[in-house]
Amino acid sequence: MRELPLANRPEAVIVVTGSELLRAEITDENGPFLARELARIGLRCRKITIVGDDPDLLEAAIRDGIEADLCLISGGLGPTHDDRTIELLAKAGGKQLAVDPKLEREIDLIGRRYARNVGSSYHGYEEGVRKQASIPEGALVLGLAGTAPGVALELDGCVAVALPGPPYELQKLWPSALESAPLQRLLERVPPFERHTLRYYGLAESTLAAALENAGGDGDGVTVTICARDRELLAELFVDPGAEARADKLVNALIAAGPDTLFARDERPIEQMVLELARERGLTLATAESCTGGLVGARLTAVPGASDVFLGAAVTYANETKSALLGVSPETLQEHGAVSVECALEMATGARQALRSDVALSVTGIAGPGGGSADKPVGLVFFCATSEQETLAQEIRFSGDRDQIRRYATVAALHLMRRLLAQTGHS
Amino acid sequence: MRELPLANRPEAVIVVTGSELLRAEITDENGPFLARELARIGLRCRKITIVGDDPDLLEAAIRDGIEADLCLISGGLGPTHDDRTIELLAKAGGKQLAVDPKLEREIDLIGRRYARNVGSSYHGYEEGVRKQASIPEGALVLGLAGTAPGVALELDGCVAVALPGPPYELQKLWPSALESAPLQRLLERVPPFERHTLRYYGLAESTLAAALENAGGDGDGVTVTICARDRELLAELFVDPGAEARADKLVNALIAAGPDTLFARDERPIEQMVLELARERGLTLATAESCTGGLVGARLTAVPGASDVFLGAAVTYANETKSALLGVSPETLQEHGAVSVECALEMATGARQALRSDVALSVTGIAGPGGGSADKPVGLVFFCATSEQETLAQEIRFSGDRDQIRRYATVAALHLMRRLLAQTGHS
Repeated sequence: MRELPLANRPEAVIVVTGSELLRAEITDENGPFLARELARIGLRCRKITIVGDDPDLLEAAIRDGIEADLCLISGGLGPTHDDRTIELLAKAGGKQLAVDPKLEREIDLIGRRYARNVGSSYHGYEEGVRKQASIPEGALVLGLAGTAPGVALELDGCVAVALPGPPYELQKLWPSALESAPLQRLLERVPPFERHTLRYYGLAESTLAAALENAGGDGDGVTVTICARDRELLAELFVDPGAEARADKLVNALIAAGPDTLFARDERPIEQMVLELARERGLTLATAESCTGGLVGARLTAVPGASDVFLGAAVTYANETKSALLGVSPETLQEHGAVSVECALEMATGARQALRSDVALSVTGIAGPGGGSADKPVGLVFFCATSEQETLAQEIRFSGDRDQIRRYATVAALHLMRRLLAQTGHS
Repeated sequence: MRELPLANRPEAVIVVTGSELLRAEITDENGPFLARELARIGLRCRKITIVGDDPDLLEAAIRDGIEADLCLISGGLGPTHDDRTIELLAKAGGKQLAVDPKLEREIDLIGRRYARNVGSSYHGYEEGVRKQASIPEGALVLGLAGTAPGVALELDGCVAVALPGPPYELQKLWPSALESAPLQRLLERVPPFERHTLRYYGLAESTLAAALENAGGDGDGVTVTICARDRELLAELFVDPGAEARADKLVNALIAAGPDTLFARDERPIEQMVLELARERGLTLATAESCTGGLVGARLTAVPGASDVFLGAAVTYANETKSALLGVSPETLQEHGAVSVECALEMATGARQALRSDVALSVTGIAGPGGGSADKPVGLVFFCATSEQETLAQEIRFSGDRDQIRRYATVAALHLMRRLLAQTGHS
């Protein structure tokens, strides 16, 4: 796995502050969000540093961060004495802090409204308002999320952006940061680049890596990254200007490595692809889930607008529920067990009937850690996708812990549904 | 939010390496896992640094990390030239690398078996084996995960531990790291501490913070952290020896701030509490989900052994499915709409019947971004929990994006189920 060392590409450092992140009470979402955004706009992310609110460590992290072309800081913008990001950014950047009167009025208004809403006195808010309205000289206010202002600040050779810590607020202010003049000036320096995305399901990482090597490997203006995620493989090619022909050659070699397993040339999540395929074909979907416990339904309904094709799921965890909701026959359960291709088939057929969908998909398996046997080990999962015209069944033995097996099974289920829908289109 | 500055507590730095993390193709799970472990064993986490495989940046991060009492490093232990963690740890710690012959034989065996299994030639593996068997002089091998050895190394004033990057492998080797002599010697220096955990649902963070201030605030040997997570509040008190009486006073004040909303004094996830309550009472559970799309079922079934009380879920996303699976009457849907207390009630009652459970819980709401109206805005969610004896209904208006609203609704649903089960026990 290589960095993204495209020629002259500006580099960024992300500094995340929040003591609760270091105690893992909360898992940081801002670092991954900002890293994804950096990749999208063509900057290289050099480092993510997560520190608490210890002023010395936070100052050191900011000083290190502003060595890069872009320093993105999240958190520490609140009204209390522990929130020191702005003060320390000003210090590290050699700027004075000054109260912005317009900002002070805005924050004051919001604070008064909030105090009124929760029925508390406004007394004691003033100091926090003045603190939150104090920004480094020359800084640009990116807007308010709650009472915390995001700011962009041009320093010598670096653009620093401070954003609030709550992920919802950070993501709300991020577009303003992107559109701000300091960041736009930086983005003008990003060399143009082409990007190819190839996504596979059911191909070994080593096969793809060997195909890449046989085609000459990357380098000479093309950077290739290959990464596995929940048993999907993602290959990305970042192409410097002038290396397009070489990139095309590599793309062709990578396609030839597993043409049947290549399922996408873009980044749409598999659940979105399934919904779009069904929508194009005018088909409704339902699932019957056992070991995934609702995860397939949850992934499909995470996509806004899923309701026009996804009707619902029968999560039949207990055997009696498989019979009661889906009509799985007690004989099948007794003879073959709930974890069997026969049961998967009856679950899918039953879901099509019970939920009155055009297509239904079933998952039944052993997620562990208990419940396995020599015959049917932990990780064994059966799938079935069925439509009026066609039925596909699959058996996979996953390795990993309970959480991984459930995630892998969810992705495998979505891919089987995609295959069925794609074939339905071809018939 | 304060650090955990307990007297003389050893400090740790976590260094995570993996270029894919900086492009956010994968979200780091190792930093949060290790941070949680550090809190559990009483060490303070000073910083988490995420870097790619650029040797200079990784070396700088390791050099910075070994300034702490404990440096935990994840990733970069693979067989290829990009995997440089061990080499750079040796360099930063001033140690020579040497091949461990026993380790070399073990890795060689595993490599040969793997090559045979995937049907590829073993040729070319030798170099990688020698590389992975090369460890810093004086280092202790913590075992193998795949072909990558975890190592612990005692340096001047610091214990460094390198673990493989895949979360499953890291977590598999972590117990050996904890039990290793170098880490045990470090843990002997951790002063004893008491910890209190208080968890609330339905209490405002500001109310709890005010109660803390009124009781004298923290300090004087007691560190209090309050943090909100999916609308649950978690208050933790870390108590130095000698400050127990003061801590008890604070605990009492925090309990008095919201006795009806205090639901736990430990860290069991709410889904586990629900399952345990049901198990104690000999009751089976089912859910009927609309806007959560299966998330409640997925959370319940994430707990190993859920199958003895959780029967299943009817994920009824479409209106017709609500009628088909749960018998929600078309009149209710027409008069009150699917997002109504009436529909929630019929969904829960219908789920009890259809899934033949003792207790059932329903969720129906508008997760957005579309589908809202002035009357029924995005974020409006109705819940109903019902048993033979009792029925509880609830209406909540959440704010946030689609993902947040669904997560909040999932947690709210689990809490309503917990309340119903707790009351069932008291009757």
